[in-house]
Amino acid sequence: MTLPLKTKKTQVRRAPKRGQYDFEAIAQILDEGLVCQIGFVVEGRPVVIPTAYGRVGDKIYIHGASASRMLKSLITGIEVCFTLTLLDGLVLARSAYHHSMNYRSVVLFGKAENVTDKAEKMTALKAFTEHVMKGRWEDVRSPNPQELAATCVLALPITEASAKIRTGPPVDAEEDYKLPIWAGVLPLTMATGSVITDPKMTAEIDIPENVLDYHR
Amino acid sequence: MTLPLKTKKTQVRRAPKRGQYDFEAIAQILDEGLVCQIGFVVEGRPVVIPTAYGRVGDKIYIHGASASRMLKSLITGIEVCFTLTLLDGLVLARSAYHHSMNYRSVVLFGKAENVTDKAEKMTALKAFTEHVMKGRWEDVRSPNPQELAATCVLALPITEASAKIRTGPPVDAEEDYKLPIWAGVLPLTMATGSVITDPKMTAEIDIPENVLDYHR
Repeated sequence: MTLPLKTKKTQVRRAPKRGQYDFEAIAQILDEGLVCQIGFVVEGRPVVIPTAYGRVGDKIYIHGASASRMLKSLITGIEVCFTLTLLDGLVLARSAYHHSMNYRSVVLFGKAENVTDKAEKMTALKAFTEHVMKGRWEDVRSPNPQELAATCVLALPITEASAKIRTGPPVDAEEDYKLPIWAGVLPLTMATGSVITDPKMTAEIDIPENVLDYHR
Repeated sequence: MTLPLKTKKTQVRRAPKRGQYDFEAIAQILDEGLVCQIGFVVEGRPVVIPTAYGRVGDKIYIHGASASRMLKSLITGIEVCFTLTLLDGLVLARSAYHHSMNYRSVVLFGKAENVTDKAEKMTALKAFTEHVMKGRWEDVRSPNPQELAATCVLALPITEASAKIRTGPPVDAEEDYKLPIWAGVLPLTMATGSVITDPKMTAEIDIPENVLDYHR
């Protein structure tokens, strides 16, 4: 897919070699993440709120209670900055100065559109659930009309966005490579703990496979 | 420590029972996180940038190249919204509607102060390194005067901040508890992968204990 993703706003300024403007690269990072940050301006001041999201094609969906300040602000069509960061490792250099992190991040600018079409709203709600856990939507009770009405869904088009990626070993100053200091990368990943079945279960039900074998 | 952390701006509006305004609770979340998000306003538009940070007492330090747009913007004394989110688990309810996440987040408002005092600057640089990995500062080459000059350090006072925390099992609608659907929590944690020693090492040096036994 070709989109005018690279604009004056999304162009990566620091370490420009790390910038990527390819839709597939951006979509892959979006699909792996779980919590994004939504930045917006209220009375001239910045507000950043963490929230869940889902993706369908070239749209990111966010949602919440219709009464939430974030959604009430965004629905007016103000500018939004969406960011997502996946931390992949600690980059441990020989000098304090060259310590870094390996990461993949997405920064996206745009205006949120209120999703009022019921079919699209249901598609977005499915995307939220499936984004968190593949296959979960089929296993659970679907939203009823009251829940659908109480949920505000906003769409953010993926049109002005960039990814920034750092990989690989530390890059030290040339004269530091001879120092007797260990250097390298400590990879970081997301791991799952032991599943905690709700103590309020009313029947014996096996833990589903997609919960037991969860990975992103 | 008692601070006027709870203000009109930091008051948690959605799910107010999840809000905490206690300094120790906030500091604990800050000390566990690795990457924060810095929100600020450029020409009326929101910008959110992920970055590393450190904490010393009631100050958060962020840093970067003096030429970075973020630091050049913040140094002018504009308002900043700092956020940090630790994801602790997926909350898998019986209904799609009641799916949630367990998390601990901090939202902090303030204005960044340029740290020009050399001793405080060095303290902050130590805090960055030690925040990433305890004991690393003693093992590596300290910043030299050129590196110190090339690094811009900003301090954000922890005075107007809140934590928001969700823990525990899903909360379903009363009539859904009888449904034959598995519900529970899948805990998520950060895990380390196999350490990757820099291929450009010039001597055989053991991987340090704090790298091998890394945990937060």
